[in-house]
This record gives sequence, C-alpha cells and structure tokens, in this order.
Amino acid sequence: MIEITHNDIELAHQRIRPYINKTPVLTSNTINEIVGAELHFKCENFQKVGAFKYRGATNYILKHTRDESLTSVATHSSGNHAQALALAAKVHGLTAHIVMPSNSPKVKVDAVLGYGAEVTLCEPNLAARESTLAEVVEKTGATFVHPYNNIDIIEGQGTAALELINEVDNLDAIITPVGGGGLLSGTAIYSKAKEIAVYGAEPTGADDAKKSLDKGEIVPSVNPNTVCDGLLTSLGELNFNYISKYVDDIWLATDSEIIAAMRLIYERMKIVVEPSSAVTLATLIRNKATVKGKKLGVIISGGNVDMSGLFDRFTNI
Amino acid sequence: MIEITHNDIELAHQRIRPYINKTPVLTSNTINEIVGAELHFKCENFQKVGAFKYRGATNYILKHTRDESLTSVATHSSGNHAQALALAAKVHGLTAHIVMPSNSPKVKVDAVLGYGAEVTLCEPNLAARESTLAEVVEKTGATFVHPYNNIDIIEGQGTAALELINEVDNLDAIITPVGGGGLLSGTAIYSKAKEIAVYGAEPTGADDAKKSLDKGEIVPSVNPNTVCDGLLTSLGELNFNYISKYVDDIWLATDSEIIAAMRLIYERMKIVVEPSSAVTLATLIRNKATVKGKKLGVIISGGNVDMSGLFDRFTNI
Repeated sequence: MIEITHNDIELAHQRIRPYINKTPVLTSNTINEIVGAELHFKCENFQKVGAFKYRGATNYILKHTRDESLTSVATHSSGNHAQALALAAKVHGLTAHIVMPSNSPKVKVDAVLGYGAEVTLCEPNLAARESTLAEVVEKTGATFVHPYNNIDIIEGQGTAALELINEVDNLDAIITPVGGGGLLSGTAIYSKAKEIAVYGAEPTGADDAKKSLDKGEIVPSVNPNTVCDGLLTSLGELNFNYISKYVDDIWLATDSEIIAAMRLIYERMKIVVEPSSAVTLATLIRNKATVKGKKLGVIISGGNVDMSGLFDRFTNI
Repeated sequence: MIEITHNDIELAHQRIRPYINKTPVLTSNTINEIVGAELHFKCENFQKVGAFKYRGATNYILKHTRDESLTSVATHSSGNHAQALALAAKVHGLTAHIVMPSNSPKVKVDAVLGYGAEVTLCEPNLAARESTLAEVVEKTGATFVHPYNNIDIIEGQGTAALELINEVDNLDAIITPVGGGGLLSGTAIYSKAKEIAVYGAEPTGADDAKKSLDKGEIVPSVNPNTVCDGLLTSLGELNFNYISKYVDDIWLATDSEIIAAMRLIYERMKIVVEPSSAVTLATLIRNKATVKGKKLGVIISGGNVDMSGLFDRFTNI
C-alpha cells in the first residue's frame, strides 16, 4: 500500500495554493452553546466550485502536467468532483470529459458545461457510467481521475485540514463527512501527524463506512437512502486503508437530525451548505456528552444545493 | 435640521468597533459577469443579530450611557431593530422593552426574549404599536429608540459604508436597500464626503422612497406589497433630508426580480440573505447599462430569514 504522509499533504498545499481559495474558518456562539463545545468550521462551501473537491482535482492536474504529457482527463460523476475536475482542467489548459447520468439536474450539467467540459450523458446506473466512461477514455485517450480512490486526490483533500490546523491552535479533534472517503482519509493522515483525533460522520441511511470500520473490511454501500447526495458511494481501497489506520470512530445521524443541523447552520451562521455538510454537526449534537468542552474542527464540505423549490415560499407570499 | 457629517460617522465607528463584527467583503466572478460590473458585497448578514441594525443600536446606547443615566430603552418592531436593541441593551447592562405585533413569527419573538428583553405583544397595526409603546414608556421610564429617524442610529448605520470604503479602493458608487432610510442616509453622508455616488434600491411594491425623492417631500408608504419585509416603512424626516440631499437616485425592482437575485446570491455566493438584501442586486441587473464597467459597493443588509418551510423539500425526499 502506498504511504501518503503529512509531508506529501504539505507539498500538495504549496502546489495548489495559488489556485484555490483560502476558505474562512467561522464560529457561532449559539451553536457552541447547543453542542457544549468550541466548534471551528472550515468553510469549503466558499471553495472554488463550491466544494473541497477542487483541492484534489487541482493537485492531480498540477502533479501530472508537470511529469507527463497529460492533455485530457475524464471522470463519471453527477456531483462536485465533476465540476471540480472540469474547472481545474480548464484553468490549466486541459480538456475534461465528464460522463453524467441522464437524470442529473440540469443545473449540474449546465455548471459542468459552463466550465468548458465535454459532457456525455448515460443511463443512470453504475454499470452504464463505467462502460460509458471506458468508451470515452478509449476514444479520447483521456486519463480517468477517480473522485477519491487516488493518492493525488487524497493529498489535495487533506489540505483543508492543514489550513484549519494552521489557523486554529490546539484542536482536540477534527470531524468530516465520509462518502467515498477522500476527504476523511486526507484529513486523517494530516491530523494524526499533528496528534489530533479524527472522526467521520455519515447518515444512518448510508452507514457503510461505519460498518466497514467495525468489520475491518470494505462493506459496500447498497441502496443507500439519505438526503446527503454526496455520501452515497462505497469507500475506496486506499481510503479504507487510511481510515482504518487513523480514524478514531465514525459517528451516525439520521436524516431528520441532519436537516435540523442544516437549518441551524443556515439560521445561525448565515451560510449555504449542502445536506452532506450538515451531517458532522448533527453527529456532534448526538455525541454532546463525548465532545463536551472540547475544541473541535469541523469541515464544511460544500454548498452546492439545488435551489429549485427552495424559494417557492417567497413567490407564494 | 441637525447636521451629521462623515466625521460623526468616524467617531461612531471608533465607539462601536469593539462591540461589532467587522463583517467580510465578498465578491463573485459569476455575478460580476452577469452584471457587467465589479461588485463588492459588504456582508452585514454576518453582523451580530444577523443585520446592520446592531451598529445603530450599539451607537445609540454607547452615546447615551456615557452622557446620561440611561437605564432602559424601548421600541416597537417585529424586525431586526428589535433584536439589535435587545442585544445591545443586554451587552451594556440595560433593560430593553420591545413592543411586538401579536402576529410576529414565534422565531422572532423567541429571539428577542433570548436576548433578555421584556416583550409586550399588541394588536398588529401601527396605532396599537404606538399606543402600547407609549404605555410601556410611561410605565417603565424607558427611552424610545426610533429604528431609523434618529441621529445616533443614522451615524451607526453609516459605519458599514465606512468599513467598505476603507477596505475597497476607488469605488464608483455604493448601493443599499431603503426602507425607513437609516442605512441609506448614513451611507450617503459618509460616501458623498468621499466623492462616491450613492443609490438606493427598493421594491416596486413599496416604492415610497423613489416617489418621495421625485416629489421632493415624504410620500408615505401605503399598503406596501412586497416580499421584502424589512422595507415596508415610510421614510423618516431626518432620513428624507439626507437622502434628498445626497442620494443620486433610487432604483426599483419587482419581487420576482428580487427573488431571482436572492437565488443567485445563495447559489453563487453561498450566503444566506433576507429578501430585503437582494433588492440591490436585482436593481443592478436591471440597470446593467448604467453600471457597466463600474466598481460598486453593495451593502447586504441582513440574513434573517424565517426558515419555516425552506427545508420541506429535503424532508420530502
């Protein structure tokens, strides 16, 4: 197994720093009172493309355009990785080929097209996504960039924790959402080198990472059912390796707890976050007794919410 | 007529600075492209109590507790001024008495109670609000603090523009929403001293400030009908005086334009703003031709949105 160290994440940070937003760290007295702990939110919803994924995509492209003759990249995704790879490719003069399921919201397809990527639509299932991607790669010679099971991606995602730790002294623990595990594994590698505890947070309706950690092997995510559309996937092998090595525990929260936490963030912090980003706060409220009095870093992973319907209340006044 | 100068606003800023949040100035490339101008958003949604109103309330209390034996304050309001006065009073050891209409959303009443204020409910009309306030003042000896038609309040509200101008060089113009005119008049006094143009923005369904400016006298707001619940009131006399003296024009936008602008701010800037704060961007989009290529300051007045119903879409998934 490839060893990624905190030093690799520091190098990744130096590499990508000119191209990413240094996102703010926000706090809320009210939320601190509710949890009974001191929370420092690293706001990757203010990252380019609205999510931490831009860090990994940028790191991948910078590493490989220096070493190799990388001219085009490809992935299948309906989410933030698609937008991140599309924009990072555009910024560095590459072509991105994105395979998206045909039922992707128009706003997401438009965003990817807006970043200048080539979009190929496919049937909305994993088999179709993989076979369509294989065809695109075959035809174009583009290099497949996995959304999380990749060293360069993991290094890049770890840089959010690096910035948070550099800005806020003496954190007791850092908590991030976990889907495929790119953010959590990068965070864990860096944080553990700094002797900071690390927790993952996932919805009860997609608790494969918790099950995987408990069982000591990857338990696939089968028919996940949650409002957290960014946390549906199974762990990657590299990700599972680092998570089982470094992560202290994975905490769960129900969708109704997640939506309540999301509302609290909107109301009290005045920031837009996606449901997948609220799972961390939801689990901290559940685990109040454990985190009482602690100083905690919380990574807000993104702010890409489909706003359709969200403003109907105003139009009906 | 009392003369407030930009120097008074500088003194107010020195006075309140230790007690307020220095709110961030945000930008969005996408929104700049849409408007065809360079917009710098001063984000008072991140101010204490979620609105610029905390500046004025704090300035009022600090000025009067130094000079006089002010021990309690009162106002009638269902909005951000109520919360601002309640918290500012609490912070400085005063009692606040707030008269609120009986149909105020529970969340707003709870917020005011949460800041330790005494709340008196009254019938939901202006006559009842004024008579109930008179009774409260009579009974408690509290001093009425007007939400906008007051020198100290105007001075305080002008400090948002001061911070914006100190942070962003060479602005061509600043634009703010206009309701009673506290924010716009304070902004205009300070900005004009720095030779920066000033525009007000209001909804077509509550266009009394535009009518007042055109007619040269206060035209009352009668049966306003708009989603912008913070912009329903008529101009105060002091406010009208400064607005007619210093403001270049007042621009209008319809509610549907305002909601579209609000959505753009949520989607692209990832911040929560109230409808009253989106009217500025809506008018800039309407007046693209006029502002083309300009460098503009935009004051986001607040982020207090009643979230009831806003998350129904997620619970129904």
